[in-house]
Amino acid sequence: MSTHRILQVAVIGSSEADETALKIAEQAGAVIAKLGAALVTGGRGGVMAAASKGCAAASGTVIAVTPHKQMDDVNDYAHYHIPTGMGWARNAITGIAGDVVVVIGGSAGTLSEIAYAWMYDRPIIAMSCCEGWSKRIAGQKVDDRRDDVIVACKTIAELESALRDRLEHFSPTCSVSL
Amino acid sequence: MSTHRILQVAVIGSSEADETALKIAEQAGAVIAKLGAALVTGGRGGVMAAASKGCAAASGTVIAVTPHKQMDDVNDYAHYHIPTGMGWARNAITGIAGDVVVVIGGSAGTLSEIAYAWMYDRPIIAMSCCEGWSKRIAGQKVDDRRDDVIVACKTIAELESALRDRLEHFSPTCSVSL
Amino acid sequence: MSTHRILQVAVIGSSEADETALKIAEQAGAVIAKLGAALVTGGRGGVMAAASKGCAAASGTVIAVTPHKQMDDVNDYAHYHIPTGMGWARNAITGIAGDVVVVIGGSAGTLSEIAYAWMYDRPIIAMSCCEGWSKRIAGQKVDDRRDDVIVACKTIAELESALRDRLEHFSPTCSVSL
Amino acid sequence: MSTHRILQVAVIGSSEADETALKIAEQAGAVIAKLGAALVTGGRGGVMAAASKGCAAASGTVIAVTPHKQMDDVNDYAHYHIPTGMGWARNAITGIAGDVVVVIGGSAGTLSEIAYAWMYDRPIIAMSCCEGWSKRIAGQKVDDRRDDVIVACKTIAELESALRDRLEHFSPTCSVSL
Repeated sequence: MSTHRILQVAVIGSSEADETALKIAEQAGAVIAKLGAALVTGGRGGVMAAASKGCAAASGTVIAVTPHKQMDDVNDYAHYHIPTGMGWARNAITGIAGDVVVVIGGSAGTLSEIAYAWMYDRPIIAMSCCEGWSKRIAGQKVDDRRDDVIVACKTIAELESALRDRLEHFSPTCSVSL
Repeated sequence: MSTHRILQVAVIGSSEADETALKIAEQAGAVIAKLGAALVTGGRGGVMAAASKGCAAASGTVIAVTPHKQMDDVNDYAHYHIPTGMGWARNAITGIAGDVVVVIGGSAGTLSEIAYAWMYDRPIIAMSCCEGWSKRIAGQKVDDRRDDVIVACKTIAELESALRDRLEHFSPTCSVSL
Repeated sequence: MSTHRILQVAVIGSSEADETALKIAEQAGAVIAKLGAALVTGGRGGVMAAASKGCAAASGTVIAVTPHKQMDDVNDYAHYHIPTGMGWARNAITGIAGDVVVVIGGSAGTLSEIAYAWMYDRPIIAMSCCEGWSKRIAGQKVDDRRDDVIVACKTIAELESALRDRLEHFSPTCSVSL
Repeated sequence: MSTHRILQVAVIGSSEADETALKIAEQAGAVIAKLGAALVTGGRGGVMAAASKGCAAASGTVIAVTPHKQMDDVNDYAHYHIPTGMGWARNAITGIAGDVVVVIGGSAGTLSEIAYAWMYDRPIIAMSCCEGWSKRIAGQKVDDRRDDVIVACKTIAELESALRDRLEHFSPTCSVSL
């Protein structure tokens, strides 16, 4: 088991997002930084950029996993960039790129990421205050393979609490103190 | 544009399916063969095998696109096998491997395929008579990028009619007469 | 084990090929059809199109696995099309999409396919008469994990003989008589 | 263009490596840290682990992009982990995950990464002192699409100089001072 690994939270959501989603995403990024975890996003605009901006502004670390080919083809807030060159097939990666996955709004691309997060057994938290798949699927199961549900959070305070609970669950296997 | 290309219908659904889904899948495979289209599935058991069995029995052609690595690691009914070696990331392919995509039941893997079919603008038909994502999402939009909805079919007769309509729409670009 | 599966030969090579490679590819396609196997290519131009043309003209079956997203974005000679939507990452698939893999010329993309064919233990035959990676690597090992080498063939007659030997090796697991 | 992005060097090589390759890899990791770049590897053993160990020991940042599914399935030296869940298809990513790519030894998997690095126009440096593909291909072109060659380095001092030159070439687009 890795002794250096820093806990990661993946934030998934649309590149075209409304004001509510953008605001929540920026605050979520800051919360992730505060909790000592790194943020992973899809590295594009909208929710991805807003979460990254919030995390970077709070001195957190941001990793982008994009569908693109070139190193510089990534939003302004990522510290590290993993270009996949594989278009939306990269959603199979972004959906599982965290110890916890947070859904903020989201359209079809986000839905594919939710499905992968569920298949690969990542804890999933969905912001039910944001229109899109985070609202449509919050509190539900994707299918019967898991006993849990996608946890619904209505506010940033609820998200912080839910994230803290789940990250503490992982902390014994990780050198980072939260 | 291809002058040889034969129209394809992708059938997506779970490897573990109930009797209703298996029966519908086998009948759907036969309908696809009858309409002169080839069937593409994920090449595993359950809905994938049942649809393939029905298509092959009706003298149709069956192509499997699996998550596996070896040529022989595919169900008994596929004529051709494209192993991807990439686990569930292959869902980005099976979801878009037809001129039309038919959903029969389905859990998280199927949901990821539905999301890809929607993103890549494939017409989608969902069997609302089968428990799982085909029932949950029939008649709905995945998001607002498209004007249409996922077409709901309750019976095989409705599926045949819906498939015929959509395949005829494509036929001018294809040498195959339906 | 599949009782329906038809043996497949993958032909890999560049979309921009010289006259020698194109001629060899077209003849190779015809040989594959004659031996009763299906042809799988990357579905683009050059060697891929030439092999497909030769196979289709000899009444063989041609499957294309492209980097593209749309069903009609494939060369004129493919009967079936599996679009991957994942750019050159699709080379991980085309390199292993046959019971045997034949290399004709080839640049960097072909080299990636050769590497995958080797990793996934596919028998590889390289046309040493064609400039590019088929000539550079014919008769060599990619690494020490396998006991065999990439078989060098200088002529279409040699290719036919080598293919026949290898396909007969697989035939007991396949319903197709060669 | 990203204003936060930190330059990255991808190190590619085999999970089973000889003493020379392991020693060079560990030193290369330290050089990358010293130059202020982050290291990206495939996150497994051998060359990947040795380079990561050297980089982490020199206070550098290490990102792993693995073929695996679970967050903890990564070597001991990675700070961040991007699991792809797609087996060796992840080589399409690791091969292009740096502003510069360094090859140390290497078998078929490494060869596929070299091919992707070349296709996506990454500068490539190969340690010609290490047995395997870094020695076989150092100083050569993969094909004619590029004017440059894979730069051969015989020593760590040569690698440091070559890396410094190339990273300085990128520095105007990056906020990191080298």
